[in-house]
Amino acid sequence: MSLHEEMVAMGEKAVLASRGLARLSARKKTSILLAMADSLEARRDVIKVANSLDLEAAKASGMTAAMIDRLSLSDSRINSMAKGLRDVAGLKDPVGTVISRWIRPNGLEIVKTRVPIGVIAIIYEARPNVTCDAAGLCFKTSNAVILRGGKEAIRSNGAIVEALQAGGAVKGLPNNAIQLVATTDREAVKELVQLEGMVDLAIPRGGESLIRAVVEQAHVPVIKHYKGVCHTYVDAAANLEKALKICENAKCQRPGVCNAMETLLVHEAVAAQFLPLVAKRLGVELKVELRGDEASRAIVPSMTPATEQDWYAEYLELILAVRVVPSVKAAIEHINKYGSNHSDAIISESEDAQKEFTHEVGSAVVYVNASTRFTDGAEFGMGAEIGISTDKLHARGPMGLEELTTYKYVITGDGQVRE
Amino acid sequence: MSLHEEMVAMGEKAVLASRGLARLSARKKTSILLAMADSLEARRDVIKVANSLDLEAAKASGMTAAMIDRLSLSDSRINSMAKGLRDVAGLKDPVGTVISRWIRPNGLEIVKTRVPIGVIAIIYEARPNVTCDAAGLCFKTSNAVILRGGKEAIRSNGAIVEALQAGGAVKGLPNNAIQLVATTDREAVKELVQLEGMVDLAIPRGGESLIRAVVEQAHVPVIKHYKGVCHTYVDAAANLEKALKICENAKCQRPGVCNAMETLLVHEAVAAQFLPLVAKRLGVELKVELRGDEASRAIVPSMTPATEQDWYAEYLELILAVRVVPSVKAAIEHINKYGSNHSDAIISESEDAQKEFTHEVGSAVVYVNASTRFTDGAEFGMGAEIGISTDKLHARGPMGLEELTTYKYVITGDGQVRE
Repeated sequence: MSLHEEMVAMGEKAVLASRGLARLSARKKTSILLAMADSLEARRDVIKVANSLDLEAAKASGMTAAMIDRLSLSDSRINSMAKGLRDVAGLKDPVGTVISRWIRPNGLEIVKTRVPIGVIAIIYEARPNVTCDAAGLCFKTSNAVILRGGKEAIRSNGAIVEALQAGGAVKGLPNNAIQLVATTDREAVKELVQLEGMVDLAIPRGGESLIRAVVEQAHVPVIKHYKGVCHTYVDAAANLEKALKICENAKCQRPGVCNAMETLLVHEAVAAQFLPLVAKRLGVELKVELRGDEASRAIVPSMTPATEQDWYAEYLELILAVRVVPSVKAAIEHINKYGSNHSDAIISESEDAQKEFTHEVGSAVVYVNASTRFTDGAEFGMGAEIGISTDKLHARGPMGLEELTTYKYVITGDGQVRE
Repeated sequence: MSLHEEMVAMGEKAVLASRGLARLSARKKTSILLAMADSLEARRDVIKVANSLDLEAAKASGMTAAMIDRLSLSDSRINSMAKGLRDVAGLKDPVGTVISRWIRPNGLEIVKTRVPIGVIAIIYEARPNVTCDAAGLCFKTSNAVILRGGKEAIRSNGAIVEALQAGGAVKGLPNNAIQLVATTDREAVKELVQLEGMVDLAIPRGGESLIRAVVEQAHVPVIKHYKGVCHTYVDAAANLEKALKICENAKCQRPGVCNAMETLLVHEAVAAQFLPLVAKRLGVELKVELRGDEASRAIVPSMTPATEQDWYAEYLELILAVRVVPSVKAAIEHINKYGSNHSDAIISESEDAQKEFTHEVGSAVVYVNASTRFTDGAEFGMGAEIGISTDKLHARGPMGLEELTTYKYVITGDGQVRE
């Protein structure tokens, strides 16, 4: 069987599985999710053995310590995967929810109902916990899932999927509801995202290069974010104490994630007062490298000079680009030009400035007087997150269970015909 | 300027225009739409002259009478375009609507707000009224639009767009909110749908080959339907009188449209009673060519034998494929295999059969005891329609104003930082 045939076969199996999934009641899905969690814990040793083989290979290939940490499955990580499944089991099932319902003058009743999307492909990198999280969320929403993890984690992912399948099967998990691409052949990703009519949605998770490759190859819809170049704009009417705390949190609380601040914009009216506070707290005390434009460096000469590239940069580390702007409008223009439509904040006590900013910044999530770090499914109260979208269609910002569904219209009449 | 540069320039202008559009109030947009309608009527003679040049060229090139009819702009068609704009002016503006709003335990207020998509490209064929309809709907939802009509209608479309721009400009229509691709070069479509970061959505309207070409070339999201292979399934528990009226309507009321019935499925328990009625009313009286499977032809031998291709066919004329099935389940399987996810109906008085059918048929619109011909924005009460989607993401079924919007999250705090 060629790789193409192999992937088509997976796609066909997933389509069949998705029909079985659509028939499961919410109660049944809950019991399956709980059984999957139990099975993960029961097979803890098998999973750890598989993981140790992945780790050996990774060390032999000279993988960095950070990557090896991501790949490692300790007892506490296995516990937390199981807990994740139990948490998802406890969430409200969106499938079957009535979104709206109305009756036409001719008596037809139109019901717009939430339904599963069908078959979802998840393409991701080294972290094996994504295998479990994504499988749980897709199953909860009655979607069949085809998982394609990084080759470094192939044995760990295999053991996790086996545990989920075995545990779920006892309680009625349909065959092939959760499939893992068995080959590490890179071409498999391309084949997978070209299965038009079988795969309904592809969600790539990982570095920008992985995501760009998926988008370029895909014939099926893709929802993704390339990167998070998040801004905090400190307005002329900002409470500077609040602003400093928010900037510290947005930049330093966890700099390696997509909702961390990368660029600080400061209104010229408060720059001379605010930037020295930033230089002291972030620059000196928290060891953030500050890269400023000319106006910023006139106030804090110790800043590194910023170049045009800095405005586009997603550092993901303790580096911050700093720019002084003459107006809210200039801040908005900067964000709409250099930003990534992810998350951007204004710090201001002026309602006019807040309104202008929230109205005109085109990003998925716009904040007033809060840290951009809140862009997260759990922080939004969604309970779980399959990823974050900076696209404009279907889903924006954190994607939870509802975003893994679509809708259909069910129309009931009593013999109505069109005039 | 190369074609590529020309299209990039249009894309950039559209992005700028979309920012201006997002600032317009609902009241302002209404006055602009009314002014556009007045301008269309005031420039009726200019439009008719342009149209007559298109018609001359079309006749010289040997275009069919049906195509020439579609291309023709009579006074009544111009009136109806103007009325269309006035109707859209009177619809509720979805932009700025709050979809949901909640407060997190930390005090953050999350508001999910409806916003324009941004820049929409519409690619269509010969009918010049699409120019006006699409421009009106995109403008109403504060989206900038780039229109690419068929080359046969280039002069008519140009005159219509000029009328809309001139009328709208007086009341504050932003420059470049409505743009028409001036060249008839086929490559322009490809360039247009590859303007990632500028064009947010492409909607192709027309024949399947146009739509396939757009999908294959696109780097931006596309929403579309390839075709409408709509089924009516007459169940064992059907009221056959109702069933016959619905079948007549679904097949014959307007056979050339995507929501017309193409295949009739009949439960074997009622086939011997129902198919002779179909043969008499549709076959004999209404001149529908019936193409039946073996079981159907055993009952009505005058039917043409159906081949496998017939189950996939979108005839768009007075031809109907007919198949006898042993169960609701078999009907569902047929529809999910051969159908196009457009619109499918069950005729049955059995609640169990209705439920099984509406639950398991995967189409965008599923009917119980009604004609599939109701899949239409106006019939749904949307007031207007930009097209019909058989895709699963973002929009399914008739797409009205709401489907031309997306959402963003506006989050307001008082200094909240993430722990």
